[in-house]
Amino acid sequence: MSGEGLGEFGRIRRFFAPLAGPGGLDLRDDAALLSCGAGRQLVVTVDAIVAGVHYLPDDPPDLVARKLLRVNLSDLAAMGARPRHYLLTTALPAALDDDWVARFASGLGEDQRRYGIALLGGDSVATEGPAVLSLTAIGEVATGAEIRRSGACPGDHIWVSGTIGDAFLGLAALRGAYPNLPPEQRAALIGRFQLPEPRVELGPLLAGIARAMLDVSDGLIADLGHICEASQGGATVALPQVPLSAPAQQIVASAPDLAARLATAGDDYELLFAAPPEASDRILGLSAELQLPITRIGTIEKSAGVRLVDAEGKPVPVAAGGYRHF
Amino acid sequence: MSGEGLGEFGRIRRFFAPLAGPGGLDLRDDAALLSCGAGRQLVVTVDAIVAGVHYLPDDPPDLVARKLLRVNLSDLAAMGARPRHYLLTTALPAALDDDWVARFASGLGEDQRRYGIALLGGDSVATEGPAVLSLTAIGEVATGAEIRRSGACPGDHIWVSGTIGDAFLGLAALRGAYPNLPPEQRAALIGRFQLPEPRVELGPLLAGIARAMLDVSDGLIADLGHICEASQGGATVALPQVPLSAPAQQIVASAPDLAARLATAGDDYELLFAAPPEASDRILGLSAELQLPITRIGTIEKSAGVRLVDAEGKPVPVAAGGYRHF
Repeated sequence: MSGEGLGEFGRIRRFFAPLAGPGGLDLRDDAALLSCGAGRQLVVTVDAIVAGVHYLPDDPPDLVARKLLRVNLSDLAAMGARPRHYLLTTALPAALDDDWVARFASGLGEDQRRYGIALLGGDSVATEGPAVLSLTAIGEVATGAEIRRSGACPGDHIWVSGTIGDAFLGLAALRGAYPNLPPEQRAALIGRFQLPEPRVELGPLLAGIARAMLDVSDGLIADLGHICEASQGGATVALPQVPLSAPAQQIVASAPDLAARLATAGDDYELLFAAPPEASDRILGLSAELQLPITRIGTIEKSAGVRLVDAEGKPVPVAAGGYRHF
Repeated sequence: MSGEGLGEFGRIRRFFAPLAGPGGLDLRDDAALLSCGAGRQLVVTVDAIVAGVHYLPDDPPDLVARKLLRVNLSDLAAMGARPRHYLLTTALPAALDDDWVARFASGLGEDQRRYGIALLGGDSVATEGPAVLSLTAIGEVATGAEIRRSGACPGDHIWVSGTIGDAFLGLAALRGAYPNLPPEQRAALIGRFQLPEPRVELGPLLAGIARAMLDVSDGLIADLGHICEASQGGATVALPQVPLSAPAQQIVASAPDLAARLATAGDDYELLFAAPPEASDRILGLSAELQLPITRIGTIEKSAGVRLVDAEGKPVPVAAGGYRHF
């Protein structure tokens, strides 16, 4: 509780209660209520972020809120679930005043409307350290229709939505890299870092199509490794097939070695999935319907491990380890 | 992620995956699965605690874990729900090593077995500040059987489980107060501060009996104020009726002014509820069945506000404001 400003209760009443959905009981009760329809399952995920680790302390608070929410919605999409509700805990230093909280809540409000979800509950505490924000997101999927990481079979095609590597390049651009890039391309890359687009529409539509899926957060190659491990198989990815945005293509054109780095960069929040070859037409149909690129980048195989190859099928070295935040 | 020891993934695999229930998918997927039976509702709550604010940094990690869990189970009990699952996020400084995490997880494991619940998912991040721990607990209640804070009616009796003020006295004892108290009484008070007993059995049994309920965390008087506000009424509480433990009675005997302080102290995690007079026999029956004191302390009234009175019905002054942590 803060001795100045609105205090914990005041902030909840002013900024967060207006975000509460019907089950949130106006954030006045001990807990929230939640029902799931017959034949439906709930899908639950939680992520925490820390100032200075996952975002910069002076990032706009509305963007911080929206990124936190979207990262969780991406996890729900990766299970094939539609988002419904979320809960939030904030541990904030005294330096973050009511105005910061107001802007943080306004970012949540904006994305709530965009994604048709509502706040169910939360907690707000003080810390003398950097801000720690934790969000639990709850979605819904038909019972048995969830898409897990396991389930990929040898011969399955590997697909990825959108483009890869933009968030990595956006963070570099924020730090002053690529000064010659046109401003709108620069802004596009930075936007991909600051505000991912969770594939909330595509995810649920892949039920019955994708046999294994996740969202790319640790890096394309590391995350494909997670699918392979869970599915007890391996994979080969053709680096030239990995989809890059126009600005990323332009940067890679003058620094070809960067291509392999982008495949391990992370924070893409694109859906990566395995599907049987006969599903290709349906996948390309979804791509057209959603006006979202979905690109085949490789094949699931029997032998363990993820192999990255060039246009001639020669191995491309991949840096070890997953994605590390700044 | 930590550069030393097991690292984030290693800790999850070693310490937390063994705590996962069936819906937790071994903590290897993007999200967890959760179903609720026909005619059942889920009840969800979340609480965060910070080292140095809600617990002392050198408190035993297993007790920290169990207290965090129990505080959330108390919220579920206050809605009349039975606990089922939980999710956890930890933001930990580098000083908390694998051994600390192992002991923290072992505390969770112990209380999981005690309460018949399982871990559904989580996230683990690094912070340069004090540890921040956030836990989302999920319970179940028959649809419409939940007990909210609103619903108390004038004439309802006000009841409270267990005893009040022990956690406050336990914290004082930890800091060296009451040096003449017998060691076993001292330990009992400290235990109430370090490890609350959520009333998980009583809560669900009060469905159809209690018209309004919550758990006492901000302090008996402040929390009764929350019931009154939500129920658009008021209340009078007889201070001599507020149940005290044997050690608390002994301390109050030599410091009578402390009695009113205990009624505002907080962290009791007892159930406070309003019920119609005709429910008294059933309530006393539950008290006998569970071998848990349930004491009538006052009456719900029409006029707003909470009044504390002495044995003669004279007003007892109450300090303003709710409970503040150390």
